[in-house]
Amino acid sequence: MGNQKIVKTKIKQTRSRSPEKKAKQFERILDAGKQLFQQKGREGFSLRGLAKMLNMNQNNVYNYVESKRELWVCIRKKFYEQYRNENKVVIKNHEGSTVDLLLDLFDHFFKFAEEDYGAFTMMHIIPSPPSDKIGPFEKQYKPFNFLDGTTRVIKEAINEGEIKENNAALLSFFMFSLILGATIVENTMRSFEENINYKGTEADEKIQFGTQPFTSKEFRKYVLRKIQLGLTDPNLIVDESDYK
Amino acid sequence: MGNQKIVKTKIKQTRSRSPEKKAKQFERILDAGKQLFQQKGREGFSLRGLAKMLNMNQNNVYNYVESKRELWVCIRKKFYEQYRNENKVVIKNHEGSTVDLLLDLFDHFFKFAEEDYGAFTMMHIIPSPPSDKIGPFEKQYKPFNFLDGTTRVIKEAINEGEIKENNAALLSFFMFSLILGATIVENTMRSFEENINYKGTEADEKIQFGTQPFTSKEFRKYVLRKIQLGLTDPNLIVDESDYK
Repeated sequence: MGNQKIVKTKIKQTRSRSPEKKAKQFERILDAGKQLFQQKGREGFSLRGLAKMLNMNQNNVYNYVESKRELWVCIRKKFYEQYRNENKVVIKNHEGSTVDLLLDLFDHFFKFAEEDYGAFTMMHIIPSPPSDKIGPFEKQYKPFNFLDGTTRVIKEAINEGEIKENNAALLSFFMFSLILGATIVENTMRSFEENINYKGTEADEKIQFGTQPFTSKEFRKYVLRKIQLGLTDPNLIVDESDYK
Repeated sequence: MGNQKIVKTKIKQTRSRSPEKKAKQFERILDAGKQLFQQKGREGFSLRGLAKMLNMNQNNVYNYVESKRELWVCIRKKFYEQYRNENKVVIKNHEGSTVDLLLDLFDHFFKFAEEDYGAFTMMHIIPSPPSDKIGPFEKQYKPFNFLDGTTRVIKEAINEGEIKENNAALLSFFMFSLILGATIVENTMRSFEENINYKGTEADEKIQFGTQPFTSKEFRKYVLRKIQLGLTDPNLIVDESDYK
């Protein structure tokens, strides 16, 4: 039946792929890497595990990505791109004041993390795996500097007189801290709500996040409302002399 | 010279240690586990690595701790105890209003994380390693529910009329989110300040945290000042109808 020969030909094709096929295979690798991280955390995130998952030879994986760190950087980059593109839609669709836009952007931050908490942790919580060498992807990496975007919108709101404080970058860091922390808290609450009987909640100190008289959804609404009130509140202005 | 015999006796003593010696050895294990986590993250945090570090037989480690998760829970417990004890001192030494006390407690949260960021991440960021079985330490674990402490102080400030909002638990979660996020941001800023040339800052998206016209210290002061202004600000009160 000639099966043996067909298999051999296939292997040969794999070795000399077209650029399109190589790109496609690379996408498969990124997807698998993302899944691996989501299922097993950074500990399970290894090129060996990846090769096993994709039924590839580990040496062949090295044709696509040089190190665990490189793989991480590539996957993270896709998340930042997705986040930025979604933010562009938010900006395009927004109506109302610049402070309203900020609220829409913060709301999107929560939604992005709710949609894909693994992506959120790779972007904001878990440090990239270290590596001795800087690979080709990292060499040409252009940082997204996602905080600059918020700072720009805050600056706009300051110029328009909606926000009275004058240090846009500092306020941007403050806002980021708040929604970063609130996203983590909300996620802990939600994982409790979704699986109320899961093991180890006491030693994980999670019980306190699941025994409150408010839900994770209400918590998010509360946080966004606080931000809305706070951004334009003249009582909340911090003078430079208070922190310099 | 009888050396051979002495060595043998020593080994025998090791195998049937007194409770005091066992407790001391257990403390050594917890210290080593903490170091291991701080040096290598949760990935390097293994009972095998621990045995190697302490020059112990891995089977002997199992006489002290049943699993990686148990070790984690024990180490974390010490951090919570330390944090609680330090807070007791803060409460004892405090002068002024209840809102002032809250600020002292939040300031201590920052300081604790600055002192030992590894401890902070084990307590608040990195999930405990999973395990199929619940070991003896976890079985008798009493949760600290550290947020309840803040909630109680907030309730006190509400009762005394210093804080006008009425949902103490919700405000406590909000405050925790803010200082949790700010601690992470501050740490990223500080690690940049301390080692300005370290590799990989671009692909780690850390550059933005190290290129601002304010320092991590100023950022902390700003956050605490915002909290101080916000806690007693009548403009910031969120009504239940806004989030229910």
